[in-house]
Amino acid sequence: MRGIIKLPEAVSIKSSAAIVGKLENEGPLGKYFDMHEDDLYFGQDSWEKAESEMSRRTLGVMLGKIGRKYEDLDLIVAGDLLNQCIASSFGILESGAPFLGLYGACSTFAESIITGSALCAAGYIENCAAMASSHFCTSERQFRFPVEYGGQRTPTSQSTVTGCGGFFLERGNEPPFVTECVIGKITDAGIKDQNNMGAAMAPAAADTILRYFNTSGRSPSEFDIIATGDLGQEGHELADEIIKNNGLDLGDKFKDCGFLIYDLANQDVKSGGSGCGCSATVTASYFMDMLKNGWNDVLVIGTGALLSPVSVFQKQNIPSVAHLVHISNKNPKVGG
Amino acid sequence: MRGIIKLPEAVSIKSSAAIVGKLENEGPLGKYFDMHEDDLYFGQDSWEKAESEMSRRTLGVMLGKIGRKYEDLDLIVAGDLLNQCIASSFGILESGAPFLGLYGACSTFAESIITGSALCAAGYIENCAAMASSHFCTSERQFRFPVEYGGQRTPTSQSTVTGCGGFFLERGNEPPFVTECVIGKITDAGIKDQNNMGAAMAPAAADTILRYFNTSGRSPSEFDIIATGDLGQEGHELADEIIKNNGLDLGDKFKDCGFLIYDLANQDVKSGGSGCGCSATVTASYFMDMLKNGWNDVLVIGTGALLSPVSVFQKQNIPSVAHLVHISNKNPKVGG
Repeated sequence: MRGIIKLPEAVSIKSSAAIVGKLENEGPLGKYFDMHEDDLYFGQDSWEKAESEMSRRTLGVMLGKIGRKYEDLDLIVAGDLLNQCIASSFGILESGAPFLGLYGACSTFAESIITGSALCAAGYIENCAAMASSHFCTSERQFRFPVEYGGQRTPTSQSTVTGCGGFFLERGNEPPFVTECVIGKITDAGIKDQNNMGAAMAPAAADTILRYFNTSGRSPSEFDIIATGDLGQEGHELADEIIKNNGLDLGDKFKDCGFLIYDLANQDVKSGGSGCGCSATVTASYFMDMLKNGWNDVLVIGTGALLSPVSVFQKQNIPSVAHLVHISNKNPKVGG
Repeated sequence: MRGIIKLPEAVSIKSSAAIVGKLENEGPLGKYFDMHEDDLYFGQDSWEKAESEMSRRTLGVMLGKIGRKYEDLDLIVAGDLLNQCIASSFGILESGAPFLGLYGACSTFAESIITGSALCAAGYIENCAAMASSHFCTSERQFRFPVEYGGQRTPTSQSTVTGCGGFFLERGNEPPFVTECVIGKITDAGIKDQNNMGAAMAPAAADTILRYFNTSGRSPSEFDIIATGDLGQEGHELADEIIKNNGLDLGDKFKDCGFLIYDLANQDVKSGGSGCGCSATVTASYFMDMLKNGWNDVLVIGTGALLSPVSVFQKQNIPSVAHLVHISNKNPKVGG
């Protein structure tokens, strides 16, 4: 049983929120985000604290939209890219809610939706917040160079999204619903170039997407969008090629949050956006808005490169993982 | 509903394994571990790779004991202390199994048991491996000083356990079972001293233990042991005091894996063992052995300090979390 997890009870996405930085707000999806801040410090005195502040605000906005409070939360499942996931743990500290920390690199938002909605659907909890964040400056200094260094970027490199996205999940009959999930396997394509993570992640995305379509019997035409998390232009083309070579054509439904969030021709982001915050903010804003206005079925495939600076220094490959979530307006309980 | 998660189906611990380093093997629990290696490199050329190798072997031994193969695994849930959790992701890479990465600092083994057994009990998966590891040398150089530096240690400091522990979980009627879980809340006791993590974690452990006993109606006398993960001597005394101040006396049932694993009088480990591997190896070896030989009920409370070197440099407090797991020989399905 390594296929699709079908949730036995309808889990509603009761509320969602996405908060981003300046560059993301200036991009093509700017109008969909709940809030943005032009100051990358978000009023804090370090970038790490800024990322936590983004998480704190996202949780607050998400709860505020449906008149809920911290005390109403049964669980928070969240993660980020920082060492020891401090953006999340400090960000949600005040809430006093039970907390499961996750690490799935940039696939973390999908991982948190899977974990949170699976626990809700089984009746262990009534509700939960599923969240993920990233910040350009914390990522740059941790994984690459301090921002002040002004290092040149290669064309295949991507730009970490400054943003946090979240879902408030609860059993109920109000669409949209989290209906199906596929947990990713770690794949290793032999890529060692940390400036080409799209190529490292493409085989993981392809494996998960192929497992979904081969098991579900569904056709890509049933979906309004099939979006990978942050493969970028390079990685997305590779994933498309692998999937086509395996006999499946996703056609023009196949997109990537990494090139939806920015205007690649006019914003200097090279191959596109990356980071946990990329798929989290695009899913929690644009996709949710479209699901209220005509779309019915969305497949999000969170993609994560499981490297660390130490593993790169030690000349290890970059293994990757991709988790899939099917969000639908059709209630799975009534066979809709 | 922030209390106890009771698993609706019996989840068996079909197999367990624990592999440790030299110091742990020389300690009082040496005879309970499945394997040890005197060479801290475990035949690899870096400590990080050594930690992955420990995970790989633990998974192999765990599967081998029950004649299972990688292909039989529905899921692996695992985590460790390394930046971006590379010990786990590289360690389980070959298995090709679906993977959920967790980060709960030293509480990760309890977190992985909770997540894995909850998914099994709900019927999403048939089985899973729940694992966690730590390594003295990878932790020292990442969180403190390179080992070669030979820094003096304070009396309240702890010694990271070199070890990996794991459970193979599957629905079934063969004891012991994972029966109840409590997911921890992040607590912040205002501690800033990273050489006194026991003090930082004690309030989190106390909160989780008090929530369990206040909700379950059980008495400490029903358990053969109530063991925190790695509070060490200092932190364990503090937790005991907080719990007593709240009207609950755990008596001599209350222990800590951090002082069970070493001979504190004769091994130079200061306040005791720490790290994900501490509660993982003690639970997966000694506790499992005792459950086969007279014990019936074990409470393990994984304790995690959610700090990073960056959060310490930025003068942030050390928030903590503690997750509880009740392991019992009594089948929860038959009201045993």
